[in-house]
Amino acid sequence: MAKRRKAKQREGRAPRFWGRHAVYAALDNPKRTIRKLWATHEGVAGLDLPPDLQVEMAGVADLGRLVPHDAPHQGLVIEVKPLPDIAIEDLLAGAEEGRPLVILDQVTDPHNAGAIMRSALAFNALGLVTQDRHAPPESGALAKAASGALEALPWCRVVNLSRALDQIADAGFWRIGLAGEATLNLSDALGGKRIAIVLGAEGAGLRQNVASHCDALARLPISDAIESLNVSNAAAIALYAHHERTGSSG
Amino acid sequence: MAKRRKAKQREGRAPRFWGRHAVYAALDNPKRTIRKLWATHEGVAGLDLPPDLQVEMAGVADLGRLVPHDAPHQGLVIEVKPLPDIAIEDLLAGAEEGRPLVILDQVTDPHNAGAIMRSALAFNALGLVTQDRHAPPESGALAKAASGALEALPWCRVVNLSRALDQIADAGFWRIGLAGEATLNLSDALGGKRIAIVLGAEGAGLRQNVASHCDALARLPISDAIESLNVSNAAAIALYAHHERTGSSG
Repeated sequence: MAKRRKAKQREGRAPRFWGRHAVYAALDNPKRTIRKLWATHEGVAGLDLPPDLQVEMAGVADLGRLVPHDAPHQGLVIEVKPLPDIAIEDLLAGAEEGRPLVILDQVTDPHNAGAIMRSALAFNALGLVTQDRHAPPESGALAKAASGALEALPWCRVVNLSRALDQIADAGFWRIGLAGEATLNLSDALGGKRIAIVLGAEGAGLRQNVASHCDALARLPISDAIESLNVSNAAAIALYAHHERTGSSG
Repeated sequence: MAKRRKAKQREGRAPRFWGRHAVYAALDNPKRTIRKLWATHEGVAGLDLPPDLQVEMAGVADLGRLVPHDAPHQGLVIEVKPLPDIAIEDLLAGAEEGRPLVILDQVTDPHNAGAIMRSALAFNALGLVTQDRHAPPESGALAKAASGALEALPWCRVVNLSRALDQIADAGFWRIGLAGEATLNLSDALGGKRIAIVLGAEGAGLRQNVASHCDALARLPISDAIESLNVSNAAAIALYAHHERTGSSG
């Protein structure tokens, strides 16, 4: 148990990414420090590598031992430094009409968080806001699920989510919390040009204090046959619905 | 490698499900044969178990050894038989206006397939159609991601997907293939009351023969910053967009 915790801390400090999308995007990101690249000859074929990058050529099986079991590394593994912190004030200073914000309350699953980053970038979101303590760290699983979006979508980690929601409101955003128990439908909650979509963890949903910092709570129009959608699916729908409503260019 | 393949075959024959949503749904499904239940005392507290079910009480750690590493079993593990096959003719005989079909072409990731089943049930889909050879088997990971939908959504596995798409067209469905390279937007492709949404694997997309069996190819209105969405997110958006267009009751 202590061993596993240490491994997670190490992962937090020097995460390893794998797979073409995640590695290419990291290499393309001037803000990303890459400590080391392990690669097969096929993996780096045609890649334009920075001259100062430490590269170790290795076999497929060697790479397999650097990443979680069965991770599809595609001949490329990198060890990186986490990206520099982004202040919420700086994120909000760049707000533009039509570009939504996505706020996650205790969504800790890296696959869901990564898929949400991918959809957020796809729908031209301004960025992602999470609470520092209850969000997944940068990791290989998250980078893989984000499919490059981890490098391109501004991700702001805040200490106090309620205070951040106040600042987001001050910046002119209408904060819509997705909640299965809400009576308002999502389509009736949308309409403004500056929308912040707030999503809670599956099962627990939004914490009460976070829900009370939303301007509206809305539900997706799902049948009674199932309690809720996967949180990344819910986020994708909300981003799409906002996009269709504002007619943002795609 | 041979060992892993055998483990997968065994998993296909007698999959193990874990976690409350997946186990409760299986217990509630009269079509599901459950071979055995392992549970902690907390896990079964308040559960109404069938009298003929073989139950073994066990500790949290014992259950942990029955499922993949770190699987959140919540004190409940069952070993089951896969559900009986459903013939495409029987599935299509139940077609109703407004209820979409979801067709997956070589989507093999169980988390994605499970999340798609969950969204399909949430948006009142008639069922899911996959090709027998290139779809994930029933498994614990799929059942967990489906959050109960594996027991409730009809899932039809066909030998020949092109032939199934012909039958689906004969039943009056308009087959929309999602493809990033399409010029038509999804919202312009929707409109009919009987819609079949066809999705390919990430990366590869729809195979040419499958795409040629669609009535329209459509794209989601995403930015150039990212190549595609996660396939379950894409499915959720298409199901939502169809729901909003037809005004089906939610």
